[in-house]
Amino acid sequence: MAFLEFIRLDERSVIEYVKGVPELKLKLKLELDDDKKVTVKEIGDGNLNFVFLVSNSGASLIIKQSLPYIRCIGESWPLTKDRAYFEAMALEEQGRLTPHHVPQLYHFDPTMSLIAMRYLQPPHIILRKGLIAGIQYPLLARHIAHFMANNLFFTSLLFHSTLDHKRQVAKFCGNAALCRHTEQVVFSDPYQISEYNHWTSPYLDPDAEALRQDNLLKLEIALLKSKFSEQAQALIHGDLHTSSVMVTPQSTQVIDPEFAFYGPMGFDVGAFLGNLMLAFFAQDGLVDQPDDRKAYKEWILQTIEDTWNLFYNNFVALWDEHRNGAGEAYLPAIYNNPEVQLLAQKRYMTELFHDSVGFGAAKMIRRIVGVVHVEDFESITDSVKRATCERKALNLAKMLLKDRRKFESIAEIVSAIRQF
Amino acid sequence: MAFLEFIRLDERSVIEYVKGVPELKLKLKLELDDDKKVTVKEIGDGNLNFVFLVSNSGASLIIKQSLPYIRCIGESWPLTKDRAYFEAMALEEQGRLTPHHVPQLYHFDPTMSLIAMRYLQPPHIILRKGLIAGIQYPLLARHIAHFMANNLFFTSLLFHSTLDHKRQVAKFCGNAALCRHTEQVVFSDPYQISEYNHWTSPYLDPDAEALRQDNLLKLEIALLKSKFSEQAQALIHGDLHTSSVMVTPQSTQVIDPEFAFYGPMGFDVGAFLGNLMLAFFAQDGLVDQPDDRKAYKEWILQTIEDTWNLFYNNFVALWDEHRNGAGEAYLPAIYNNPEVQLLAQKRYMTELFHDSVGFGAAKMIRRIVGVVHVEDFESITDSVKRATCERKALNLAKMLLKDRRKFESIAEIVSAIRQF
Repeated sequence: MAFLEFIRLDERSVIEYVKGVPELKLKLKLELDDDKKVTVKEIGDGNLNFVFLVSNSGASLIIKQSLPYIRCIGESWPLTKDRAYFEAMALEEQGRLTPHHVPQLYHFDPTMSLIAMRYLQPPHIILRKGLIAGIQYPLLARHIAHFMANNLFFTSLLFHSTLDHKRQVAKFCGNAALCRHTEQVVFSDPYQISEYNHWTSPYLDPDAEALRQDNLLKLEIALLKSKFSEQAQALIHGDLHTSSVMVTPQSTQVIDPEFAFYGPMGFDVGAFLGNLMLAFFAQDGLVDQPDDRKAYKEWILQTIEDTWNLFYNNFVALWDEHRNGAGEAYLPAIYNNPEVQLLAQKRYMTELFHDSVGFGAAKMIRRIVGVVHVEDFESITDSVKRATCERKALNLAKMLLKDRRKFESIAEIVSAIRQF
Repeated sequence: MAFLEFIRLDERSVIEYVKGVPELKLKLKLELDDDKKVTVKEIGDGNLNFVFLVSNSGASLIIKQSLPYIRCIGESWPLTKDRAYFEAMALEEQGRLTPHHVPQLYHFDPTMSLIAMRYLQPPHIILRKGLIAGIQYPLLARHIAHFMANNLFFTSLLFHSTLDHKRQVAKFCGNAALCRHTEQVVFSDPYQISEYNHWTSPYLDPDAEALRQDNLLKLEIALLKSKFSEQAQALIHGDLHTSSVMVTPQSTQVIDPEFAFYGPMGFDVGAFLGNLMLAFFAQDGLVDQPDDRKAYKEWILQTIEDTWNLFYNNFVALWDEHRNGAGEAYLPAIYNNPEVQLLAQKRYMTELFHDSVGFGAAKMIRRIVGVVHVEDFESITDSVKRATCERKALNLAKMLLKDRRKFESIAEIVSAIRQF
C-alpha cells in the first residue's frame, strides 16, 4: 500500500508503510504478509521528530518522520516538514564524504516527509548520554575531526568551483525555515524576553537578566548572527551538538542533519566544542564529590583540545592535497610560494577558530537560558547545584563570546575553562 | 513574427523583432507595416552586449541582446546569455526601489536573451565620458547615494525576513557564471600571469610584476574574494562603475545590472568610489597643464566624500525608519536602547566602509593591469603621461587595499588621494 498523502505514522501504520516500499521490505527480509514478527518502537528522544525502530528477525531499520511542527513544543510552534528533504540530501552528501561516520540512507519519501536509514545498533548510544555516564571515547576526537574536516572542506570554495558552489548554495536556501528557527533560538531569544525561555530559577534570574542588558554581548551575537545568515562558506550540519552523535568506543556516527545548509563552518565546530564544554561543567553536579569525576573532566578537556587540533591538521592537509584542484578560493598560480600559502592558511584557520569559539559560546548560552536545555544539566536534580554548574558555563561562554579574538590556540581556551 | 529560437539580431532583424511584440510596437507608435521611418542604430559601447536604439517618429526604445560570449573578446571567451534574465530581474527590483534612477524595463525575452527598455535621451551621456570631458554633476553624489542606500538596505536582512532573503539569494545564485567572471577579472587575473592582462608597457612592467610578488596584497585580495563569493548581504548591482551610470546635470540613471546577485554591499559602493578615483588620477593626463583641471579635480574629490557621507546618512536613516519592521538582523526587542543601537550601526557602517575601500581599490587595480581598461586612462595618448597617472592610481589602490582598516572616514581617504 502506497501512502498518497501525508499522514502521521504511528507504531501500527509504520508497518503498513514499510510493506509498501520494496527496498525497505527487502532490508527487513519481509515476505508478503509475513509481518507477524515485526516489532516497532518509537525511540525519538529528540525535540523535533518521530523516530521508529522497525525490526524483523534480526534485521532493523529506522523510520524518521517530520511533522509540521516542533515535537517538544507542539502544534503551537509550526515548522515545515520539508526538513526531511534537506536531511536526506545532507545524509547523502555526508555519507559520500565520510561514509564511516554517517548512517546509510535507505529511502526518502517527500510526500510523507520521511526518511528510512540504517539502525545504529547497541552498544551505540547518544554521545550526550555517554558523557553524562562518564564514559571515555578514545576515538571520538579523531572521528569527529575527520567528519568535520572532510564535510566542511569538500563543500567549500577551497574545493568547489564557483559554479558548483552556487548551485549547492541555492539548493539548500530552501531550508530557510530551519535556519530561521536557529536564528531565533540561538541568536535572539536568549537576549530578549521570550515565552519559551527558561532557566534554573530563581538562582539564575539575575544572570538571565544580565544577558538582556549586556550591550557588548549583543553586538557580538549580532556579528555571529550575520555570519550565520549571510555567509555560505560550506555545507554545515547545522546542529552538531552531542545528541546528534551516536557512539561506541570504536564507532562515531553523526545523525540528524536536518538543519543542514550552506553556512559558516565555525557553527559546526563550535556546536561540538561548546557542548563538550557544557558536559565538562555538568560533571561536578552529576556526582557527590567534585573529585569523583576528576579524571573524566581531564578527558573531556583533552578531547576538546584534540578535536580542534586534529580538525585543524586534517583540514589543512586536505587543503594542501587539493591545492591544485578545482577550488577557486586560492588559485595555485597566485598563492604560488610556500610563504604566502602558509600565511593564507594561518589566517583562514585563525578566523575559523575565532568563529568556532564564538558560535560555541552562543550555543552554550542558549542551552542555559533558552527554550531547549541539555540533559547534562537537566539530570542534576539539586537545583542549587545545577545553577552553580550552569553559572560557571554561562560566565565562560559570555567571556569567550566577547574576547574570542584574544585567544590564539585551543590550549588557551582549555586554560580558561579550568579557571571557571 | 515571433522568434522561436535564439538568433543574433542585427540592425535589420531588430525591426522585425520589435514588430512581433505588441507592447513594443505600441511604445514605438508603430502601425502594421508602417516601418518605413523606423531607424535602428547599434550603440553598444560596453564590453559584453549588443545595444540597439530603435526610433520611430519621436518615440524610441532600447533593445539589448546578450550573446553567448563576451563582445569585446569574442567567441573565445564564452559567457552565458542567461545574464539577460538576471539583468531583467535586477532592473525590475531596482526600478521598484529607486524608480527615478533606473530606466524602465519594457520587455524581457528569455529565448532571445533580450530586454527592451526606456531610451535615456540626450543630453544623457555615460558618466565616464562626462568625467573625461570635465563636466560637473552637482546632483550626482546625492542621486547615487540614494540609489545605493535604497537598493542595498531594502534587499538586506536589515529589512528582509530570513525567508524572503534566502528565497531571493537562491534566485540570484543562478547568475554564478557572471560572478565567476568577476572573480577572475577582479580578484585573480591581476595577481597572476594571464593572457588577457595588459598594461602601459614597458613603463608599468615592474609595477605589474610587483603585484604578482606582493604576498600581503594577495592575502587581502583573498579575503575580499571570499566575501564576494560567500557573503549574501544584499542584492548588489555587481558592476557599478562610471560607465554603468548615465547622467545629465539633473538626472542620474543606473544601467547594466546584469552582474546582479546577492553579494557584499561594499562591492557596489567601492566600484563607484574607485572609478571616481580613477577619473581623478586621469585628469592630469587629459590636459596640457596639470592645473587646467584643478577645480575639476577638487569637484571629484568632493563628490567622493559626498557620495560616501550621503550614502551613510541615507542608509542609517532607512535603518532607523524601519527598525521595527520585518528585518531580522537587529530585532528591536534586543537592540532596545539608544546606546546599543548606535554601537551596532557604527560597527556595521565601519565594516561596510572598510569593505568599500577594499573593493574600490581592487577595482582600480584591475582596470590598470587587467583585461579591461577604462577610457579615462585610455584617452591619454601619450603613454609616458598615461603610465604616470596610472602608477599613482595603482600605488594608492595598493595602499588602500592593505591598510583600509586604518582609515576611519572618507575625509581621510581623500587626504590620502591628495598625497599621491
